Amino acid sequence: MGYAFTLGFKVRDYECDLQGIVNNSVYQNYLEHTRHEFLLSRGISFAEMTRRGIHLVVVRVEIDYKMSLVSGDEFWIGLNVARKSKVRGVFSQNIYRHRDQRLALTANVEWTALNAKGRPFQAPELESIFDDE
Amino acid sequence: MGYAFTLGFKVRDYECDLQGIVNNSVYQNYLEHTRHEFLLSRGISFAEMTRRGIHLVVVRVEIDYKMSLVSGDEFWIGLNVARKSKVRGVFSQNIYRHRDQRLALTANVEWTALNAKGRPFQAPELESIFDDE
Amino acid sequence: MGYAFTLGFKVRDYECDLQGIVNNSVYQNYLEHTRHEFLLSRGISFAEMTRRGIHLVVVRVEIDYKMSLVSGDEFWIGLNVARKSKVRGVFSQNIYRHRDQRLALTANVEWTALNAKGRPFQAPELESIFDDE
Amino acid sequence: MGYAFTLGFKVRDYECDLQGIVNNSVYQNYLEHTRHEFLLSRGISFAEMTRRGIHLVVVRVEIDYKMSLVSGDEFWIGLNVARKSKVRGVFSQNIYRHRDQRLALTANVEWTALNAKGRPFQAPELESIFDDE
Repeated sequence: MGYAFTLGFKVRDYECDLQGIVNNSVYQNYLEHTRHEFLLSRGISFAEMTRRGIHLVVVRVEIDYKMSLVSGDEFWIGLNVARKSKVRGVFSQNIYRHRDQRLALTANVEWTALNAKGRPFQAPELESIFDDE
Repeated sequence: MGYAFTLGFKVRDYECDLQGIVNNSVYQNYLEHTRHEFLLSRGISFAEMTRRGIHLVVVRVEIDYKMSLVSGDEFWIGLNVARKSKVRGVFSQNIYRHRDQRLALTANVEWTALNAKGRPFQAPELESIFDDE
Repeated sequence: MGYAFTLGFKVRDYECDLQGIVNNSVYQNYLEHTRHEFLLSRGISFAEMTRRGIHLVVVRVEIDYKMSLVSGDEFWIGLNVARKSKVRGVFSQNIYRHRDQRLALTANVEWTALNAKGRPFQAPELESIFDDE
Repeated sequence: MGYAFTLGFKVRDYECDLQGIVNNSVYQNYLEHTRHEFLLSRGISFAEMTRRGIHLVVVRVEIDYKMSLVSGDEFWIGLNVARKSKVRGVFSQNIYRHRDQRLALTANVEWTALNAKGRPFQAPELESIFDDE
């Protein structure tokens, strides 16, 4: 499967909970960081958009947890993006454990851009991320 | 709507990100804490089960983010639980902002219990949580 | 020992790490939340000050970890505040486990207010917090 | 200044709080990860020691926050280790912003090893980390 963007990570011990595995919520951190790095790779800074009053927000996530990552695991995240409607996009993101390329997690993350009034709108600077479709 | 369990919270500033709103991943912390407090209210300690080698794990989440919570917001989470199969259960959890009872988030969290070998199984001590169904 | 402000907490499982104890960094979350609630009790909103361009920042912390908190522990934090210089204050904060009032942690947190240019200054709205001295 | 170990990082947006800067507590995550990677580089796995009942714990931290890191900042942490007593060691750790090598934070982290009974002891496998002194 081809990805528009990939990013490598290593589990840090503080991300593991008392079960000794990466806590469920932490995967959303990994996924978010990958999306923001993808945007940066297209010249779009999430922090800079926020300062200008444009808020990219997640409206829905679906995450399938297939295998737990543990202390020291190296992994990578593959990302693709698709348009869902005029004002909505969907990132599909998969996490693979490095040493055996086994799929650890799949996610669909639906998002929109809010203008200064909090209304969803078609932010012009985001149009370019759909070019690969 | 009736809930088997509810729990009150207040947003803490460190849970907000550079958009000034609660970060997406943090809601999973709130949801997890509510599930664990629900289990405790039924006499089941997540930490104690973990020590005995029984791992409750989330296998899938679906979360709809409907409204952002911000610094200082008080809110509560309502929880219901249903059996999905012999070895799977589903928690449905909704978050409401306290001051206007507006729905902020809905979630379905599918989980299973893993035995010491990592295999899904029907943990006897969890059967009682389905009694309300 | 008397405190200008106290706040109660309960450990949440996601705050525990693979040692099964609250992770060192999480205590700073507890301490910060207590400081911000203290400020609120004096009519000062950290988030609102931030929006107005006044940044309260920590410049130094000293923390002694005396006893680990674990899953389910209830505890409370006592806070006092003292002036260190014209533009610096110090919060002294202690954490006590509820069930035996045993001291779990002591902290000294030195802070200053930065104006819009990032320079330390004497923020007028903060003067009132030193009234108890 | 020479360091026994260094590690590079990049700020992730979810680590920033509503002030738009890395939250104070997050630096402790960075510092911990660096210590654990240093230990790994000496053949010592923190997670593995924990499983064997040896708990490395922090007993005191002193942190001076000299400059805030923000979204996108790359930085590195330099670490040295010294013996403080038979059962105590001290990591001194400094954080530098990559683009100008400016010092962002200095920390002294005092730690000990606890045996299965929770008593501080001289863990044989840790002796080698003091070899550089």
